[in-house]
Amino acid sequence: MRVVNVAAAQLGPIQKAESRQAVVKRMIDLMDEAKAKGADLIVYPELALTTFFPRWYMEDQAEVDAWFEREMPNAATMPLFERAARHQMAMNFGYAEMTPDGHHFNTCILTDKSGKIVGKYRKVHLPGHAEFDTKRAFQHLEKRYFEPGDLGFNVWRALGGIFGMAICNDRRWPETYRVMGLQGVEMVLIGYNTPSVNAEKSEEGPEKRLFHNRLSVQAGAYQNSTWVVCVAKAGVEDGHPLIGGSLIVNPDGEIVAEAKTEGDELLVHPCDLDATTFGKETIFNFAQHRRIEHYGLISSRTGAVPPPET
Amino acid sequence: MRVVNVAAAQLGPIQKAESRQAVVKRMIDLMDEAKAKGADLIVYPELALTTFFPRWYMEDQAEVDAWFEREMPNAATMPLFERAARHQMAMNFGYAEMTPDGHHFNTCILTDKSGKIVGKYRKVHLPGHAEFDTKRAFQHLEKRYFEPGDLGFNVWRALGGIFGMAICNDRRWPETYRVMGLQGVEMVLIGYNTPSVNAEKSEEGPEKRLFHNRLSVQAGAYQNSTWVVCVAKAGVEDGHPLIGGSLIVNPDGEIVAEAKTEGDELLVHPCDLDATTFGKETIFNFAQHRRIEHYGLISSRTGAVPPPET
Repeated sequence: MRVVNVAAAQLGPIQKAESRQAVVKRMIDLMDEAKAKGADLIVYPELALTTFFPRWYMEDQAEVDAWFEREMPNAATMPLFERAARHQMAMNFGYAEMTPDGHHFNTCILTDKSGKIVGKYRKVHLPGHAEFDTKRAFQHLEKRYFEPGDLGFNVWRALGGIFGMAICNDRRWPETYRVMGLQGVEMVLIGYNTPSVNAEKSEEGPEKRLFHNRLSVQAGAYQNSTWVVCVAKAGVEDGHPLIGGSLIVNPDGEIVAEAKTEGDELLVHPCDLDATTFGKETIFNFAQHRRIEHYGLISSRTGAVPPPET
Repeated sequence: MRVVNVAAAQLGPIQKAESRQAVVKRMIDLMDEAKAKGADLIVYPELALTTFFPRWYMEDQAEVDAWFEREMPNAATMPLFERAARHQMAMNFGYAEMTPDGHHFNTCILTDKSGKIVGKYRKVHLPGHAEFDTKRAFQHLEKRYFEPGDLGFNVWRALGGIFGMAICNDRRWPETYRVMGLQGVEMVLIGYNTPSVNAEKSEEGPEKRLFHNRLSVQAGAYQNSTWVVCVAKAGVEDGHPLIGGSLIVNPDGEIVAEAKTEGDELLVHPCDLDATTFGKETIFNFAQHRRIEHYGLISSRTGAVPPPET
């Protein structure tokens, strides 16, 4: 048994006017609750420090940059890092990252139990669009404000196991899990902000969105025999609803814990990393069963190319 | 609307002693029923003509070869091809293929409405093992009797759309659907024979096996915005139970038809191939969102390689 007691710390809505300091206070409250429940690791959502700002169209780069963090930790988040170190709790959270040379990424980090950053991931699969889109019910401008992640899908040894990270839309892409699976990942940490309605298909509401969330995460877990911890920012931000549905999924693809609210809510589950072994040694023993000679298109062709009309 | 009326023709058990002629008679009965219901295409399971013989350990190659077809159509299957042509119904079924030069594959074919074979697929992901395994509750010797498919995952234009094929264990591997998705696939046809109990974990029974079947197929459909038709050979063959659970899944990943029995059973559903368009043009617009620079491991590394111990 290699049990990691994991706390999935769903955050309720963060309004546009809400300060980072106020959010960090909420995050610390959840961390204290996680500590009382014996958590080794706490996982917060994507862009955990602010509202989901890519829904707002902005032309002024200074206005955009105000949503980004220039260093991590910084003054606003230092209390969170200090509390994590005091609690001896590893943590993962997402934020908008601006690098010293002016690049913008949708980023998350993993710390060890001393609060030291040991891993960084930058979101690869940016959804949405780059210019104002009059056809959408609301905007989703991640392709405007972020560059695609340049670090790939890495894994890190931590807490006695092998950990990976991904962010939001990454969870819908089987490539995300597979690249980490090929590095032996045992737990994938994913934060998300997912609008409750499809901006391009208004009849697709929260029930369908939650179904796709579960389906993608459960399949990724099963097909790579890994734990997946998937944590929402949820609820209504300035009139824009986001789904909840934070999940902890075991290496058999089964949901072992699921959020019931759209507010700040903690799920804690003891995850035995040794439970990943059976699948990795049998049905998903990649060395025995994968046939890479037939997978070439996956990494050589970006878009779909239908066969010629006959 | 590009509606293809699809019949998923689940077969109940085929005992070891049952002849191909008797099975073909059952297949024709299902085809007649499909015709009465207006089907354009009928989909039968993997190894549809015989019992699931890889559960039997054989050392005598002549005994093995007796389960294989040397040509297709042949005397036993000609009545099926003739009936398909008379009904003007396309069909897909699986069989054990022995080539003129002595290669053995787990194969399926697609015919057009005249009964002409227009596509062939050979199973890529062979599960199981090659030698007698004393640790298993029962044998699963696909790696003994078949070579891995050498044709890759192709697609074919047929019935006004783009069709792909896969077989049984292929459905658990996201690479299967993705390689076809990158060729614009609109409907994937999959036959299977899946034991109701995991041979290496006896507490994993039919409920879990059906869950994994649904999960894999629904994720493959959703993540590539394609229809998937997944058809079982089901029931108890000479004491060995196989799951049923044949499915038709829409491009949103939702089950639109599911078998209720473990016997010969027909599901018919009108599948609009235009329903694949929305997903392919939005959330799974591969050209806009895939980042192949980070997928290299998928086609360059077969087995998992964990990072070095620190």
